Amino acid sequence: MSEPRWLTSTEAEVWATYRRLRRELQRAQDQQLQRDSGLSAADYALLAPLSESEDGVLRARDLGAEVGWERSRLSHQISRMEKRGLVAREACADDARGSMVRLTGRGRSVIEAAAPGHAETVRRLFFDPLTPAEADSFGVLLEKILKAVEKDAPD
Amino acid sequence: MSEPRWLTSTEAEVWATYRRLRRELQRAQDQQLQRDSGLSAADYALLAPLSESEDGVLRARDLGAEVGWERSRLSHQISRMEKRGLVAREACADDARGSMVRLTGRGRSVIEAAAPGHAETVRRLFFDPLTPAEADSFGVLLEKILKAVEKDAPD
Repeated sequence: MSEPRWLTSTEAEVWATYRRLRRELQRAQDQQLQRDSGLSAADYALLAPLSESEDGVLRARDLGAEVGWERSRLSHQISRMEKRGLVAREACADDARGSMVRLTGRGRSVIEAAAPGHAETVRRLFFDPLTPAEADSFGVLLEKILKAVEKDAPD
Repeated sequence: MSEPRWLTSTEAEVWATYRRLRRELQRAQDQQLQRDSGLSAADYALLAPLSESEDGVLRARDLGAEVGWERSRLSHQISRMEKRGLVAREACADDARGSMVRLTGRGRSVIEAAAPGHAETVRRLFFDPLTPAEADSFGVLLEKILKAVEKDAPD
């Protein structure tokens, strides 16, 4: 490898701030969800896209792509949520090897009760500190970095 | 609760971009570290502050505060790394109930070999897509949000 490109001190500070924000925001959200709704972040991550899908049902593989998890992690999490009556697994009509995940009535009640508090937390912590123009700039910068990360991915 | 403050569609997009970036960047870094150095993100998270500390030794509680982990997660991770000869636990001279974590010679070689590739990845994915002025703005916005999150924390 040629001479490594170390971060400048300003860059190192920005990077440290990013990592601290990622950690502290995740912690704040986890606490709020657990306290107000008895849900983990993983529960919420699956319930939200299911509740927004047509008829509350998604192919397991599409749900996995949505949250970006490996198959085994997804499968374990679905099993845990199935035991708690939040979702149900179904066979996939089009694909004998595929499976579908359906939000139960109870799952829908739980996510609908949790959503306002979750949105309020995101608003209060993530958007209230910024002006609308700053939020737009922030979105543009996040998008630039995300594009570079996605372009870099092997697949 | 009063009428929930839902996110606007622009905010919902910024929030979704933030979450996708968080996930994809983490994945890209995990892959690079594992492939080039055989280290997990958790290994790196502990080795980096140890390698930067005086004499390569930190109190376990300070190391835990540095990475923001619960005590049990920290303890399990240290045990795994101890078995691989990367760190060693020591009694704390000042505090009979406290323990210290020391980077071994092998731990230092491993982190020193991993650091250039890690820095290169952060540079390429996180800073190369931005101009220096954009990186500064990004840092300012991250800092604003982080302050709100830290102010909101119960302790």
